[in-house]
Amino acid sequence: MAYNVSEKLINAHLVSGEMKPGEEIGLKIDQTLTQDATGTMVMLELEAMNIDRAKTEVSAQYVDHNLIQVDSKNPDDHLFLESAAKRFGLYFSRPGNGVSHPVHMQRLARPGRTLLGSDSHTCANGCMGMLAIGAGGIDVAMAIAGEPFYVKMPKIWGVKLTGELPDWVSAKDIILEMLRRYDVKGGVGKIIEYYGPGLKHLSAMDRHVIANMGAELGATASVFPSDEEVKRYMKSQGREDEWQEITKDEGATYDLHDEINLSELVPYIAKPSSPGNVVPVEEVAGEKIYQSYIGSSANPGYRDFAVAAEIVKGKQVAEGVSFDINPSSRQILSDLVAEGHIASLLSAGARLHQAGCNGCIGMGQAPATGRNSLRTTPRNFPGRSGTREDSVFLCSPEVAAASALTGKITDPRTLDMEYPRITEPEKPTIDMPLLQEPLPYEEARRTKLHKGPNIASIPDMQPLPNEFEVPVLLKVGDNISTDEILAGGARVLPFRSNLPEISKFTFEILDEDYYNRAMNIRNIGHAIVGGFNYGQGSSREHAALAPRYLGLRVVITKDFARIHWQNLINFGVLPLTFVHPEDYDGIEQEETIYLNNIREQIQAGSTVTATLKKGNKTIELQHALSERQIHILLKGGLINWVKEKQQNEKGVSKYA
Amino acid sequence: MAYNVSEKLINAHLVSGEMKPGEEIGLKIDQTLTQDATGTMVMLELEAMNIDRAKTEVSAQYVDHNLIQVDSKNPDDHLFLESAAKRFGLYFSRPGNGVSHPVHMQRLARPGRTLLGSDSHTCANGCMGMLAIGAGGIDVAMAIAGEPFYVKMPKIWGVKLTGELPDWVSAKDIILEMLRRYDVKGGVGKIIEYYGPGLKHLSAMDRHVIANMGAELGATASVFPSDEEVKRYMKSQGREDEWQEITKDEGATYDLHDEINLSELVPYIAKPSSPGNVVPVEEVAGEKIYQSYIGSSANPGYRDFAVAAEIVKGKQVAEGVSFDINPSSRQILSDLVAEGHIASLLSAGARLHQAGCNGCIGMGQAPATGRNSLRTTPRNFPGRSGTREDSVFLCSPEVAAASALTGKITDPRTLDMEYPRITEPEKPTIDMPLLQEPLPYEEARRTKLHKGPNIASIPDMQPLPNEFEVPVLLKVGDNISTDEILAGGARVLPFRSNLPEISKFTFEILDEDYYNRAMNIRNIGHAIVGGFNYGQGSSREHAALAPRYLGLRVVITKDFARIHWQNLINFGVLPLTFVHPEDYDGIEQEETIYLNNIREQIQAGSTVTATLKKGNKTIELQHALSERQIHILLKGGLINWVKEKQQNEKGVSKYA
Repeated sequence: MAYNVSEKLINAHLVSGEMKPGEEIGLKIDQTLTQDATGTMVMLELEAMNIDRAKTEVSAQYVDHNLIQVDSKNPDDHLFLESAAKRFGLYFSRPGNGVSHPVHMQRLARPGRTLLGSDSHTCANGCMGMLAIGAGGIDVAMAIAGEPFYVKMPKIWGVKLTGELPDWVSAKDIILEMLRRYDVKGGVGKIIEYYGPGLKHLSAMDRHVIANMGAELGATASVFPSDEEVKRYMKSQGREDEWQEITKDEGATYDLHDEINLSELVPYIAKPSSPGNVVPVEEVAGEKIYQSYIGSSANPGYRDFAVAAEIVKGKQVAEGVSFDINPSSRQILSDLVAEGHIASLLSAGARLHQAGCNGCIGMGQAPATGRNSLRTTPRNFPGRSGTREDSVFLCSPEVAAASALTGKITDPRTLDMEYPRITEPEKPTIDMPLLQEPLPYEEARRTKLHKGPNIASIPDMQPLPNEFEVPVLLKVGDNISTDEILAGGARVLPFRSNLPEISKFTFEILDEDYYNRAMNIRNIGHAIVGGFNYGQGSSREHAALAPRYLGLRVVITKDFARIHWQNLINFGVLPLTFVHPEDYDGIEQEETIYLNNIREQIQAGSTVTATLKKGNKTIELQHALSERQIHILLKGGLINWVKEKQQNEKGVSKYA
Repeated sequence: MAYNVSEKLINAHLVSGEMKPGEEIGLKIDQTLTQDATGTMVMLELEAMNIDRAKTEVSAQYVDHNLIQVDSKNPDDHLFLESAAKRFGLYFSRPGNGVSHPVHMQRLARPGRTLLGSDSHTCANGCMGMLAIGAGGIDVAMAIAGEPFYVKMPKIWGVKLTGELPDWVSAKDIILEMLRRYDVKGGVGKIIEYYGPGLKHLSAMDRHVIANMGAELGATASVFPSDEEVKRYMKSQGREDEWQEITKDEGATYDLHDEINLSELVPYIAKPSSPGNVVPVEEVAGEKIYQSYIGSSANPGYRDFAVAAEIVKGKQVAEGVSFDINPSSRQILSDLVAEGHIASLLSAGARLHQAGCNGCIGMGQAPATGRNSLRTTPRNFPGRSGTREDSVFLCSPEVAAASALTGKITDPRTLDMEYPRITEPEKPTIDMPLLQEPLPYEEARRTKLHKGPNIASIPDMQPLPNEFEVPVLLKVGDNISTDEILAGGARVLPFRSNLPEISKFTFEILDEDYYNRAMNIRNIGHAIVGGFNYGQGSSREHAALAPRYLGLRVVITKDFARIHWQNLINFGVLPLTFVHPEDYDGIEQEETIYLNNIREQIQAGSTVTATLKKGNKTIELQHALSERQIHILLKGGLINWVKEKQQNEKGVSKYA
């Protein structure tokens, strides 16, 4: 059978299911990537699961998000992550080494492999002929434990690239063109596979730019072939031996089709406040700017900084413009220093920041109130910059640098200069302390996890009891978001590694007393009743884990948002819906719900009967759990499920 | 008469008083320096004073403290400061240009001038043959308005330097030796003047290191001659024409004497948690470190980074060491890039941060809990790093770099390498957008102050009424610190530019309801009664300004801490003490105090009579105000006093 690249990658890793769009498939995961914002909880999950050593080929823990150390919390997290990487046999990328995605590409990405990462831009490494997918923290913990990753088989969308980019137009404009055409949901349920003659003009790093912002299209992954350009890139990184060719078979087809003629593209810009709000730069040219910002995994390459440096070389940025340079990796920063580009940027007035994610995730470089910020980053959701009601535009380094010079949004084609074409250094710096390698097993198992005062292990969780009688501690309406269940932001997220502490913020926006009531009856447990679309919004796992920690056993709603529903199951909370939605009206807060013989009930079928003690009546509920999910729930969640599995395997191997 | 350098500088600027130690002298101020942490309030004071244009020769506003932009407050402050610099005719140093002290030295410092700065390390520029003094914000505002600076004539302390520094010993070790000998109060009431044959081996930047940390000795200023080395330095900066020779007269004497033989010094280190806690490095060698930190105004020179770079060149910092490089200025960073030193530091594993104060004032780079941090910064007071119960050591770049390599505190003389002697670039980078020059007057007066939502003008304040009847809204005990009056820290200080907002935190540690009670009777006003040593601690002006804004008219105590007493006067609050301290016991909170004919009473003598309405009795109070201070109080504080003076002068010039 003739396969495209995506199908080849999936087929080679398929452990369950069939490659039919919409069917659940299980994929063997070769590599994982965790960053520090999500990684501390992943490492605590590995600890709770009693994982002895990562079972993947490569797992890497990066520190790139929380680099601002205004108190001990972030540096304590860094030490914890380092100790966990050592304990579990992971690579560890130290703070200052740079953003996970480009560093992974430089040192660890490998054609033909699957990569699962607890960061939504994990998809960036699709540029290397890999199947790279972003996922929740516990999904990645499971992958590290050797479990498959389950996902619905996406449709494969072939995008044929023809022609060649004109001067002043670069890779960012290709993905902005995709966003202009299809907006931020255009990629949902799809893998975007780029192919065609236009590819040969796009470097591996250019492809990284495109694959990275596949996340903004909502795509499951973006896939490029592993061709001569990937070979060249790996050779420059001293890793030619890890290369293999992966291209689509002759006659391979796609479920969906489109084509982009690169020659026809112009400089684009995404206006506030959505990456899908794309127009040609000339439509907004002339608007005054406060900031021009270059960096992030959406434009991480040597080229992206060098082209900006060549544009501003020998000139000065406009008065009042904050020209922020956020190097993406230590290796690229070193090359930029060696080639004189950092000197050009500094002379022009740049503010040079530490290598890392920085302002891209709101950690510094927030713009002034009411001022326009031009960024080469992937996202401009409202407030993501750190400034309320911000005004962030997304664009290429060419547009950002040209605008820094003029002080207003500028189509770089109107600059009076020749387009500086950048070639990457043939021998980039690679002798850097980029990554600490995994410890040998004997040394690893002797490593103790180093926990600062704000890092707390995940407590043991009980299996699902066969019957329970619990009060409805909270009854809420429709469309409750995970932000209302457990807020994000600078007040709450510093406690991301401390379940007992972060739990104190649970539901505080809706009901300040929920935490106290729940803690009082934590050993009994409680239920929550909700309306339609319960748990919409951010995929934050803590929104399931924190109430579970506080004793939540069952949530009964009219229906659930998909990801939160999955998270509740993962952490052992039973999600049920009303068979008769009007029963919602008959349940008062403080009502007591009695569920009898529940373990048998959920295994026997999809209907569950519950008794309301006060109302003294019976209501019908239902679940939509798969067999696998039922197993997980019975054990009390994924952590227990894997823990037991690990023990059984160890038991077996002992006698093998 | 034979003068030493200090006396020459004072004598040339004396506008009142006599050069007798302990007598109040008034000094003409040629130059001022403000940074962003203190500068926003200084600029608001200039606005409130109706200042039209700075009357100094040079006034510069730097942005170096609050560079972390996690929301709009800091960038809004930056824009406000830029607009204020333009409006009032100041130089403006943009964020990213670096720390005020080295940048001022590079571009604006001038032998023979006086410099007053709202930063305690302003004294650093004493290295340039200047009289450079740190002061409160409103003192600097007054200087910008053309008013003299008043200070008690210090004793002049001559410190003769002989010999030459051995290998691996540098300027930092000289000032650490001074701190070892005299501890943190050893310089109080003194100007330290360095002289002698040892000077010729110390570069202007070496002298900056020594003068800077005169602040840690508590000295009023540190003074160096303007000699051939200063000439060389200014020539390298393209400012040879601004140089003048200033050396002590033959036969000049000092009030106090000491001598340091540089040849006898060894590498020193200040242990936690005081800069005076100095021992030879070898005494603590071997202690494991978490961090090695190079930067700040205490080691800002090209040499300080270059020597570290040469030490780590071609090697790697020890695993687990955070090797933080905080460049002190854009100019020096550019030179370090050009000479390959940044490349060496990055290859060794350094984290390269933006040029600025950064971790030195707790803005980033906080160490992990319970871990040792080695820093070339000037201060290691407990918690200043941002981490509670931190463990910060102060040392030279040589010690910091050697320890980064070994992972433990290391005497650099034990390294197996030749001492890298650094020569400064003969032609350092100076074509940088370092400072925006003052606008011409006509353009300046058309400039509007740009105020973000968190920046509020200082409201008008009334003159001292001739009688008032006000309730005692708060009665407190002994040793109330300015931190209890108005806390510092990350919760409160973001409102430093917003008096109405920051006032909400007034006294909240002692009495949560004070703010509400005060606001309710803001138009009537109120009194506070305190015990001994009222207002001790930080010199924070907001601790006087915020309660004044809330209606505080009079504070009656057993006695006052000196600086807070001065601040109360500056902001128009009458500070009185009990003639009979036992009267303190007879005043209840909520008692009403009646002061009659108060304007005449304070002018007539030092005693003031007050009536307690509830107790229906009379008590005797007293003041210690000078004639100048009485004038200021009658006007309602310095802002009103200067405002009126400016108007009168304008009135005069109109008809002149």
